[in-house]
Amino acid sequence: MQAEVLSVGTELLLGEIVDTNAQYISNRLKELGVDVYRRVTVGDNPARLKATFQEALGRADIVIATGGLGPTADDLTAFCLAQALNRELVFNQNAWDETVAWFSKRDRTPQNADHKQAMIVSGGDYLRKFNGTAPGQVVLAEGRLIALLPGPPREMIPMFENQVLPIITDSFPHLVPLKSKDLHLAGIGESQVQEIVADLMESSNPSLAPYAALGQLRLRIAARGKDSEESSVLVSQMEAKVRARLKDYIFGEGEDQLESVCGNLLIKRGLTLAVAESLTGGLLCQRLTKVPGASKYFKMGVVAYSEAIKTSCLGVPGDIVRHQEAVNPEVAEAMAENVRNLAGAKIGLSTTGFAGPSGGTPQEPVGTVYFGLSYRGGNIQDRQKFAGSREVVRERAAQHALVLLWRHLRESRK
Amino acid sequence: MQAEVLSVGTELLLGEIVDTNAQYISNRLKELGVDVYRRVTVGDNPARLKATFQEALGRADIVIATGGLGPTADDLTAFCLAQALNRELVFNQNAWDETVAWFSKRDRTPQNADHKQAMIVSGGDYLRKFNGTAPGQVVLAEGRLIALLPGPPREMIPMFENQVLPIITDSFPHLVPLKSKDLHLAGIGESQVQEIVADLMESSNPSLAPYAALGQLRLRIAARGKDSEESSVLVSQMEAKVRARLKDYIFGEGEDQLESVCGNLLIKRGLTLAVAESLTGGLLCQRLTKVPGASKYFKMGVVAYSEAIKTSCLGVPGDIVRHQEAVNPEVAEAMAENVRNLAGAKIGLSTTGFAGPSGGTPQEPVGTVYFGLSYRGGNIQDRQKFAGSREVVRERAAQHALVLLWRHLRESRK
Repeated sequence: MQAEVLSVGTELLLGEIVDTNAQYISNRLKELGVDVYRRVTVGDNPARLKATFQEALGRADIVIATGGLGPTADDLTAFCLAQALNRELVFNQNAWDETVAWFSKRDRTPQNADHKQAMIVSGGDYLRKFNGTAPGQVVLAEGRLIALLPGPPREMIPMFENQVLPIITDSFPHLVPLKSKDLHLAGIGESQVQEIVADLMESSNPSLAPYAALGQLRLRIAARGKDSEESSVLVSQMEAKVRARLKDYIFGEGEDQLESVCGNLLIKRGLTLAVAESLTGGLLCQRLTKVPGASKYFKMGVVAYSEAIKTSCLGVPGDIVRHQEAVNPEVAEAMAENVRNLAGAKIGLSTTGFAGPSGGTPQEPVGTVYFGLSYRGGNIQDRQKFAGSREVVRERAAQHALVLLWRHLRESRK
Repeated sequence: MQAEVLSVGTELLLGEIVDTNAQYISNRLKELGVDVYRRVTVGDNPARLKATFQEALGRADIVIATGGLGPTADDLTAFCLAQALNRELVFNQNAWDETVAWFSKRDRTPQNADHKQAMIVSGGDYLRKFNGTAPGQVVLAEGRLIALLPGPPREMIPMFENQVLPIITDSFPHLVPLKSKDLHLAGIGESQVQEIVADLMESSNPSLAPYAALGQLRLRIAARGKDSEESSVLVSQMEAKVRARLKDYIFGEGEDQLESVCGNLLIKRGLTLAVAESLTGGLLCQRLTKVPGASKYFKMGVVAYSEAIKTSCLGVPGDIVRHQEAVNPEVAEAMAENVRNLAGAKIGLSTTGFAGPSGGTPQEPVGTVYFGLSYRGGNIQDRQKFAGSREVVRERAAQHALVLLWRHLRESRK
């Protein structure tokens, strides 16, 4: 089963709008068991658009096009599909009635140009619109399925999910959906993970693939059995093997984020948190507080960007602050301990280092970061050296501080 | 002059990697005066890749392909281009010498598989590599130019800029580049801007187009004259008209960001800054400190997430904190004034509000944010109501705080 995905619009070609539809549709089709072999972006030009449809229909079982369904003269997708299929566009009363109703709900009346959106490729049907004025269309032609969807994702996605996917599974009943599950790891490098699960990554069904992000790793398990149940079993079997080998690094699954996992652990253990940041400059607080309900456990943050502030507001002793421009383990420790006391929190967490591009010392070059974590039982220190731009060093440092917090919270259950 | 851009790689088709190359290349070609009529994404499949090259070469003067130049068996781009052109791949000694030198600098020796990267389409030439191991290739065939570039943007972009663009301008000397300039606006809505410059937006050369982002707006001016000089004059004329009407809202141009513009103004006026954040939770500090050299003017930030911290650390009087869960103009003002005093800074800036999804009161629903700005001459307050998710409210609030700071700094020169 082959599919092609077309993105229609001159503004896409010019790069004025980033196309996220093609990727979304490709992912969803893959999950359904349909392989996308080609994606094409083409402008609002009738000859090229017709040719693109003809090429796609010559190869694929399923063609999904987004964009160019609006009321204006340069919206030509339906017209060009009709041409490519040697069919007419015909007026569809139901599509029109729905358009009229949509406008009247908003105390408006449709214009002449809106008639265009009720013109459906002969033999096809219209797709009810969501969040917009443009209905979609679906055509079955010689065993192939063609769907035309609006360009804006908030209109496209519900139409695709609620109307196109059921038609695809009805029309191609032998498709077996792919099941997948993501595990999220932190505190271990990609190459190390690849070594540990090298043999598992050779398996093709279930498959196991790593995707590295800044300071963390996603392991995607995917399987396609003879039915949905067998697929689930295959995924679970692989998951058990992966967890057995990497359990110390797996912080979550699916939509979990490191900051929300930390937040849940803080709530579960009845703990509160305060943060003192130097080089991360607010990034660590920002990640912690972006979780809804963070005020339950996040007490305060201090962005102590200057040496004077580290001394005056955080009470870090002047002699250790002056040492190495305040980038040393004693400063990190004092920052964590003092912000914890200042806020009356159970845990204090700190970063200090050189983000670059300037700064640093021969012993502690740009990218050197010290971390402190202070809790009732004592203080933890850590030193890391990160490579990359100022932005990357800051992001890696904030990520590593969260990893330290997560590890501490996980241990503290014991 | 027509171009097509091909993105090669199964991982792109599956949506596992987002393709930014095609958009980058399309934009740069457009600026050069070359229109991109089609973009195609295709997997690492020899038959489909060859067919895609043949289709593109049947239509376009310039074909740029990225991806599939690596040493492994599934990197097939050069082979498939050779097939599509009915040419051979030939060993290129210079490309190989460079590969050997690249490896030896890293105390490594190339493997057998690396020979593949020195195999160049007959009649073509190799492109020196940047930041990676894969050289590119360029072929001139019957008046058409084909360039093969590596997939990783950090390898592709310098190769495209330094080697491919000069070859294009040499090969097609009649191209007239597009000149463009971006102006950045804040503190005014898109629809208001569109009203003010409606007549200017009707012009097609120079053209004027708005691109809205969160809390700010980019106005792109573009023109193509008979030569580069005339293009520049056309852009300048439009810029003068836009500036005359919108000067109070234009905070920068080109690569300027609101936080760096504020930073430069702070340095220029010899001022320092301290920040007290509630709902923005570190986001405002993070944006201010991401500018290299921010430590020159940014003294400290306090993320006062709880009412107790607002009182104990920021010295906001308890009676006004308890009023409306600390979301009121007095709290914003006290936060700004007290963090300014605490840090010994010249300016204090604050946010307090309800980011959602929960919280808020009947009078001050989710999305309500108060801002404070404290300076030697007095205090400024502001109230805004933002719509959107928790993330959007936080981002709009941080953006608005920066707009307030920018306006204040701009005025303070007078």
